[in-house]
Formats: sequence, C-alpha cells, structure tokens
Amino acid sequence: MVQISKEPAPPSPLQRSVPTSADVARLAGVSRATVSYVLNNTSAVRISEPTRRRVHDAAKELGYVPHAAARSLRAGHSRMVLMPTPKVPIGPLYSQFINDLQWALSRLDYTVVQYGGVALRGDEAARAWAELRPVAVIVPGEGLGPQGVAVLKRSGARAVVALSPEPVEGAHVLLLDHGCVGHSAGRHLVERGRRRIGVVVPEEPGLGVFSQPRLAGVRRAVRGTEATVTELPLAYDEGAAAQLAARWRSLGLDAVFAYNDEYAMLLLRALQDEGIGVPDETAVVGADDLMLGRLLRPRLSTVHIELPAGRDLAELVDRAVRDAGMIPATHDVLGARIVHRESS
Amino acid sequence: MVQISKEPAPPSPLQRSVPTSADVARLAGVSRATVSYVLNNTSAVRISEPTRRRVHDAAKELGYVPHAAARSLRAGHSRMVLMPTPKVPIGPLYSQFINDLQWALSRLDYTVVQYGGVALRGDEAARAWAELRPVAVIVPGEGLGPQGVAVLKRSGARAVVALSPEPVEGAHVLLLDHGCVGHSAGRHLVERGRRRIGVVVPEEPGLGVFSQPRLAGVRRAVRGTEATVTELPLAYDEGAAAQLAARWRSLGLDAVFAYNDEYAMLLLRALQDEGIGVPDETAVVGADDLMLGRLLRPRLSTVHIELPAGRDLAELVDRAVRDAGMIPATHDVLGARIVHRESS
Repeated sequence: MVQISKEPAPPSPLQRSVPTSADVARLAGVSRATVSYVLNNTSAVRISEPTRRRVHDAAKELGYVPHAAARSLRAGHSRMVLMPTPKVPIGPLYSQFINDLQWALSRLDYTVVQYGGVALRGDEAARAWAELRPVAVIVPGEGLGPQGVAVLKRSGARAVVALSPEPVEGAHVLLLDHGCVGHSAGRHLVERGRRRIGVVVPEEPGLGVFSQPRLAGVRRAVRGTEATVTELPLAYDEGAAAQLAARWRSLGLDAVFAYNDEYAMLLLRALQDEGIGVPDETAVVGADDLMLGRLLRPRLSTVHIELPAGRDLAELVDRAVRDAGMIPATHDVLGARIVHRESS
Repeated sequence: MVQISKEPAPPSPLQRSVPTSADVARLAGVSRATVSYVLNNTSAVRISEPTRRRVHDAAKELGYVPHAAARSLRAGHSRMVLMPTPKVPIGPLYSQFINDLQWALSRLDYTVVQYGGVALRGDEAARAWAELRPVAVIVPGEGLGPQGVAVLKRSGARAVVALSPEPVEGAHVLLLDHGCVGHSAGRHLVERGRRRIGVVVPEEPGLGVFSQPRLAGVRRAVRGTEATVTELPLAYDEGAAAQLAARWRSLGLDAVFAYNDEYAMLLLRALQDEGIGVPDETAVVGADDLMLGRLLRPRLSTVHIELPAGRDLAELVDRAVRDAGMIPATHDVLGARIVHRESS
C-alpha cells in the first residue's frame, strides 16, 4: 500500500471566521430579512432589482453561502433525499439505475445524499438517518423494519421508499424479487431438454439476498417436470471453480445456472479447462447480460434483468413528498427475460 | 422498462407532528437543557443516573431523534464528511477504496455522505456542498479549483482533500497520476522487444482524465528507444472493436496497451476473431488486474494499480480537522507494476 507521508504541521495562520447573513446585510445596507428573501428566492415578497443585485454582490464579495441546516430548521423540512449506501457490492446495472435516479431527483430540485454509515444496522441506522432530517429516504436492500419507518416519519420524512426483496410495513416498496431471474433461467434450461440443473450460490457474504430467491425461482420453474435442482456453493476464485469442475462428472449435471455472468465466466473457464464440452455436455446460463458474455466462446446465454426507470422512482418520491396522505403500496418492479446465445 | 403504477392517493389521515426536545423535557419532568446534556452525552455537566434514565425513557417513548442540523448549528460544526459522487463510472478497485475509506471514517466517528448533485460543476458545486456545512470534503476527480476550496473553507470545512490528477491550490491533494500506469505498460512492451505500440483511448466521455495520462506515460516510456506510439480511439462495443481489428495489419502494430482489462478483453476477442495471433503477432496488455484477465486464453498481462489505503486517507482527514493550521500538501500516491502473463 502507498503511504501518505505524515510530516508534522506548522502552527496555524490567521483563521478567518465564517461569513453570516448579518455580514451580507451590513455590506448591502439592507435588513437580514431582505437578505433571506433575496437569497432564498422568495416570491411572496417584492424586492426591487437594484436591491436584489446589491445583496447578491455583497454575498459574492464576502463568499457567503446559506446554511442548508439553518434553512431547513426554519422551513421545517429539507429538500434532502437520503439514500444509505448499499451494503453489498453493486453491479453496473444497479449503478446505472442509481445514477439515473440521482439525475431525475436533481431535476426535481432534490439534493441526493448517500449515507455511508456502513457499521449501522436496522433501527439504529434509521435513527442516524433521521438525525439529518431528510424529506425522503430511499433504502436499498433489506434491514428497514416498521419501527425504522416510524422513526423516520416522526422525524419529518414524508416519503420512505424501500427497494426490497420483501414488503416493509408503512413504507412504499419497490419489490425486487429475484425469483423471476432464476425462474427465467430454469424454464429455459428445462425447455432445452436439460434435466439435472446445478445452481451456483456465491459464498461471498451479503449476496444471499439475491442468490436465495434466484435458487427458489429455479426450483419453481422445474416443479412438475422431471428436472432436479442441485445447489452449488462457490467462492469467486479460480481454485474453487477448478475444484468444482474436477468433480463435475460425478455430480451428473447437464446444466448450470451460474448466478450471474461473472460467475458464469469463472465456471465456464474451469469446465473448459477440465475438458467438459459446453453446451454439449453441460449448458451454462448467466445473468445480467453484461458485454463480457458476448465475448466468450461459446457466447454466453444470460438473463436480462430490467430494473424500474430511475425517473419513475423519482416521480414516486416527489408525489409522496407533496402528498403526505398517499397510502404506501408495494410495487413488483423487477423484470427478467432469457437471452439465448450459444452456451445453452 | 417496468412501470410503477400511479393510482390516485386517498386523502391524508391525521398528521402526527415531529416530537421535539421540549416534549421530551415535559414528559421526563426536566428542563430542555437537561435533555440536551443527556442526549448529547455532555461530560461537563453531572446528571444523576435516574434522571438520565428518565430522559432516555421519555425520548424512546416519544420516538425523539436529535436534529443533527440543530446540533451542528449549536456546536458550530458537524461530523459530516462530504464526498461528491464521482462523475465517471467507477471500477471495482476504486469502489473498494471508497468502501474502506467510509469504514475508516465511521470508526473515527465521522458520518460520510456522498453528495449526488450530478448536474453541478466547479465552484457552483462547491457552493452547494458548503450549504451542508461539512467539517471535511473529499473530492474525487478534477473540477475543484482554488475558489471552490476557499468557499468551502469559509463555510467551515476544516479539511478539503482532492483525489486529483493535478495539484489544487489550498487543498490537501492525493495525486492520482495515471502516467505511471501507462509507463509500466510501455516499458514492459519495449523490454519484450515490441517496437510499434498502439494505445487504446476510450471514446466513453469522462475517461480522458485517466486515458490521457496513461497515453502520455507510454510515450514517456518509449522515449530514447526505437519504439513508436499510435493512438487508437475505441468505443466500448463489439462493432467498433471488429472494425479496429479488421484494419489491424495495415496499422503495422506489434503490441497494444488497451487502457484497462475490459477494453483488453474486448480487443483480444476481436483480434482473435480476425485471426491475429496473440502474443506472437501482437502483444496485448490491460490494466486493473481484474479476475477476468486470468480467465482469458492467453492469460492477460496487466498493470496492477495500487491506491492509497482508505485508513491512511481517513487519518489525514482527521488530522486536518483537528489541526486547522496544517499546511496543505500534495502527496503522489498511485503505484503501478506490471503483471506479466501470457498475452505479451
């Protein structure tokens, strides 16, 4: 690791104090109320153009920046949308969704802050978020319970939205049920005549929230057919993949749903190195529809996952903020469809 | 795209008001000052255990959460470390670094918020950050100028740290000069006897801040040798890679530094599909040392990049917060070394 050097610091030069709205008022020769009206763009009070300009010039000269906290204390609420940072590694698909969501919320004049209290869990986390008095909270993943929702609402959050694998009492929920991802893969493999289906379950901590529903989805897809499902725990490293490939033939599998495209690439390489023919001997299906799947030989079959549009979620948040009486509902929003290429 | 349904909401039920410290004081039968001393764990004032318990019980019963903004207004500063969300897509290496940094700052009792004002640029962005009155700001990438630093400092930020390709006046800078990445790749290729070196420059917007220094690093590495450098603009899609591969032989190149491992995988596939032997006819080198490089055949040579430890940066932030007189310095922190495998 590269070290940041630690020379002792020399003593402090003069500290300048933080300019206040009183300083701006003094320099512009107006009242503090006028400064507040001008800088907050209040339309209820008519203020002449020259006065406005004088206030802006004074603020600029002093380098005055309004204090969001003070403003939100006065207004009783903020325009802050708080999103806890997800606890699990996020893929490119979800990254893009978050990015779109942030853009859409910015355009509706909200400020999005991602809260990184990685050590906090459950209701303790909700209390920490509530301290910032966000007007809306969007929680990715599990962990938010009815008590956490109540703490947030009591602290002034008008919209509490969870992106969750299961319903959360009191919150608007975008249900991301990954069962449909496994179901798409399982049904495809059964339709292609496969009967002994392995399902990779990553050993990486935190991924169970995705991998267990995907496994359950495959099981649902084979129900009523002759096909069986075998769970295959796998670490994301070459050694583990090689070990699994070495005992592949003794498992008697003719297909595998490999959790996602990256695990599929790992396992595909190990199977090929072991001399197992793909797709003849074993079909391989990934998920996420990443570019890398198209670059593999054989080209990787995958499940394309559709998340909701960031703009739709931003609009849901905005409606909930404006209408505090909006009854929270649970929306099933995950879509999945198979992309059949050469590996299955 | 999956639609979120938009049923009209029924009218609002009773709105509960947000509990305040006055409510807690009333229920506990103590003064507001006592509530504040107890809930902020002030050690300067002695308060009996039974009183403490009464205050905590009352706060719990009412669901009272302290207001961070009000607290920071009283204290004159917050424990908030603000990080603008990076404007460019971030890779797994940088993700891990940010995650480590957040952990380390949490352990030092800071709250990390990532600020997602994606539409803001330069000094306008700095003013928006300043409104939240963070005690420290960590800015990834370019865009922060001396004026922005001044705005943040005047608004009470004690530490302003940039992770930047170039020095920023007034800020602590961790210099991430990607020249060393290109230099490692270039020197390796020259040492392997290659003389006509192509350098992939991604067309994806926002990546120039990394790709241009990497290109310059390769040029520096070939200086004084017979080798030449050819710039190869490339979009991240199969069609573009196939077109480049189709005119490969007319370019007369015997090596390519492909910007990173993902571009290397894209180009390697296109070259192989075109029948160009790797490494015999053309050597290929990536960067980032991702797992996927080891899964390719031939195994991909790559540049392993070392970022500073998140813990070291957290300590730098903490020292700067505690010692406002610490003179900002620029630390060169990026490390790079070649990982030689089969493709070069």
